[in-house]
Amino acid sequence: MTTEQLYSQIQQKKSFLCIGLDVDLTKIPQHLLATEDPIFEFNKAIIDATHDLAVSYKPNTAFYEAYGLKGWMSLEKTIKYLNEKHPEIFTIADAKRGDIGNTSTMYAKAFLEDLNFDSVTVAPYMGKDSVEPFLAFKDKFTILLALTSNEGAFDFQTKTNGEQELYKTVLETSKNWKNSENLMYVVGATKAEYFTEIRKIVPNSFLLVPGVGAQGGSLKEVCKYGMNDTVGLLINSSRGIIYASAGEDFAEKAREEALKMQHEMEALLK
Amino acid sequence: MTTEQLYSQIQQKKSFLCIGLDVDLTKIPQHLLATEDPIFEFNKAIIDATHDLAVSYKPNTAFYEAYGLKGWMSLEKTIKYLNEKHPEIFTIADAKRGDIGNTSTMYAKAFLEDLNFDSVTVAPYMGKDSVEPFLAFKDKFTILLALTSNEGAFDFQTKTNGEQELYKTVLETSKNWKNSENLMYVVGATKAEYFTEIRKIVPNSFLLVPGVGAQGGSLKEVCKYGMNDTVGLLINSSRGIIYASAGEDFAEKAREEALKMQHEMEALLK
Repeated sequence: MTTEQLYSQIQQKKSFLCIGLDVDLTKIPQHLLATEDPIFEFNKAIIDATHDLAVSYKPNTAFYEAYGLKGWMSLEKTIKYLNEKHPEIFTIADAKRGDIGNTSTMYAKAFLEDLNFDSVTVAPYMGKDSVEPFLAFKDKFTILLALTSNEGAFDFQTKTNGEQELYKTVLETSKNWKNSENLMYVVGATKAEYFTEIRKIVPNSFLLVPGVGAQGGSLKEVCKYGMNDTVGLLINSSRGIIYASAGEDFAEKAREEALKMQHEMEALLK
Repeated sequence: MTTEQLYSQIQQKKSFLCIGLDVDLTKIPQHLLATEDPIFEFNKAIIDATHDLAVSYKPNTAFYEAYGLKGWMSLEKTIKYLNEKHPEIFTIADAKRGDIGNTSTMYAKAFLEDLNFDSVTVAPYMGKDSVEPFLAFKDKFTILLALTSNEGAFDFQTKTNGEQELYKTVLETSKNWKNSENLMYVVGATKAEYFTEIRKIVPNSFLLVPGVGAQGGSLKEVCKYGMNDTVGLLINSSRGIIYASAGEDFAEKAREEALKMQHEMEALLK
């Protein structure tokens, strides 16, 4: 997928919503547990109920690895279902990987080629040669952690030691890497005041924004400081949508929550 | 496992060698490809041939994820084999994970509880609440990336911005986290001159040291500056040992290479 195609989908759906498929078997409706693959059945129902309101889905790999082989099978089925039924959707493997060069290549192949996600999240700590293998894939995107939505973001990411914060160094440095046009960045909504500074460094890049809703970030504030000419934002919501109800009406309720967000987004797009 | 048990194993075997099980199907002997699970068969043969010379084995998860479901099955079989046949061995899941709190808990459970590794490598970028869920497991270890062996380490890890390098801030900050006694650190052998400074901050911690051999690090230099009273080092070698031969004698040749390293280590322990 290209960013042009992503932007055109945003215009069509009047939404820049990403739904996080973080499936926890202790939180999904009981009746699904009797099915052969409860995780996939849950995802399929959520996707079926919301695909006209969301432009992106983002399974976090931790929730699948936690169930071992069965979890990986559910992940494979979920991405296959998305790619076959909704090829227009921008898919994100929220994997936060990163390793030395030849090893990063293995991860990149696994997520961008074999599983065929449109993008994968990557941690920046190991630098250039740990990220460039991901950037080598044409029309695929590497979403680099810049400023995350959690409290621990203040441990290192915002540390300055005098000159500038680490997340700014990450943003600036990454712009010089090979195929850097394939970069997007994770920027948490809980730190909306940082968006102005971030847009000075990466005015045109898409930003994946977690932390709206459950984690307390404001959609309006994020858009005020972070939106650019082609929107440039993917706002993620996971728990607020997928766990809106634990009953048999879970998909319907998820749609209601997604619709609320889509309406807010439509208003902000005007 | 406790660090006392690890130290006693080191004394017994006169070795602090960790063997990296980074299995690439294009590099293993051809005859194994006809077996049902070539990755596991390869690992089993390597383990059988070297377990008296190594105190630790470290599968890098990238090499298993690259083969999808089959790869995960091979990883499960490998750790199960190690735990059943060689419970004295210190096992490391080289996964370089890290996410917000509740998500890191899923990763921690997957690797330290379900797969039952003794330890897992974790990236520090997301800070305290991304690492503490791993530290909560008793007699399990979290091996935090401090200074890695690749070139990209100079992009952020050694950046100072005036006061001190990022990797030192990571080392110092992590000492204040809950259950920090369960921390070990990754420090690349390619930067032996840094070990003196590192030992000032974490004199007692075990350091997992990649980069000896193929990547050019010197075992002697690392020991000179990095060894402490209880050795405190696990030296990893992957390609140099496991791919010593691509023929039917691969396990035998791997043993020869491991034996060379064990002899060097025995001399350095005196």
